[in-house]
Amino acid sequence: MGTFIDPAISLSHGCRHKGPKIVYIVYYQPDMAGNVGAAIRICACFGAQFELIEPCGFPPRASDLRRAAMDYGDGQEIRRHASWEDFLQTQNNRSGRLILMTTAGDVAYTDFALRPDDCLLFGRESAGAPEQVHQCADARLYIPLQASARSLNISVSAAVVLAEANRQFAQNRSN
Amino acid sequence: MGTFIDPAISLSHGCRHKGPKIVYIVYYQPDMAGNVGAAIRICACFGAQFELIEPCGFPPRASDLRRAAMDYGDGQEIRRHASWEDFLQTQNNRSGRLILMTTAGDVAYTDFALRPDDCLLFGRESAGAPEQVHQCADARLYIPLQASARSLNISVSAAVVLAEANRQFAQNRSN
Repeated sequence: MGTFIDPAISLSHGCRHKGPKIVYIVYYQPDMAGNVGAAIRICACFGAQFELIEPCGFPPRASDLRRAAMDYGDGQEIRRHASWEDFLQTQNNRSGRLILMTTAGDVAYTDFALRPDDCLLFGRESAGAPEQVHQCADARLYIPLQASARSLNISVSAAVVLAEANRQFAQNRSN
Repeated sequence: MGTFIDPAISLSHGCRHKGPKIVYIVYYQPDMAGNVGAAIRICACFGAQFELIEPCGFPPRASDLRRAAMDYGDGQEIRRHASWEDFLQTQNNRSGRLILMTTAGDVAYTDFALRPDDCLLFGRESAGAPEQVHQCADARLYIPLQASARSLNISVSAAVVLAEANRQFAQNRSN
């Protein structure tokens, strides 16, 4: 099964494709449906493209995703990749970098110049991303946190880095 | 009833007061307990002080708040103010500014120089903040979003502005 866009999810109405999208947010085998719903809302707010790499820890029902896209989205496509390999095939045909967000990152996300075609990848909530995913990343970024703290929720992390991307892009436009 | 710190919530163990706190995050009469739990986690991660202005749309049980603080927090105090007036009395004795985060804000949060003693106030999820709260604010900030999008979740908004505060403070230290 190749990479596909579920026709039930690619909404034909609404205000899809209003303005250029900024960055891709991709969840690798997410464990929890709630985090996917939150990501769809966040991507709609910041103008990012949301994608999933399956299998998920829950049945990613087209009707649920469509509802989330209608509730919060701007009718954006939610692209689903059937496997890591299928995702890589798509990603290799894109111009942008593959950037893994991970607590084991090498560079703080605020010290990294993001680009509008970057693909920001998030590992599983429970287990992060496997070694092969780390090895494919062009860069690995972390969000600086208090030493005593546990990690941020995955969708909160996505919002923080998307907001920073928007801030950098706005600053670049004004320079 | 005056402003108080619930002794059941002010944990006496753990690693409280590790390093200076940055900013206060204050929720005005929050509707949903889940958003308070998320805020406690986010404040612990970014090193902020979380506070509540009551009444809440749910019973803010000390045991639930304590559990959230233990699960995610660094044993931080969760300060509860019995009313808006009680909060104002505390706030007026602080050095920092009262900054309302609102979709009706005048300035983008990224165009505003935040300070470590700032108090960032968030209105109710359902209804925002009432007029008297708007009138008391020293500044009103918004998070720029796509025109077609609905609003961000309250705790996601708190995370985005806290992350920006940390970014600004780190940049100021390196200059």
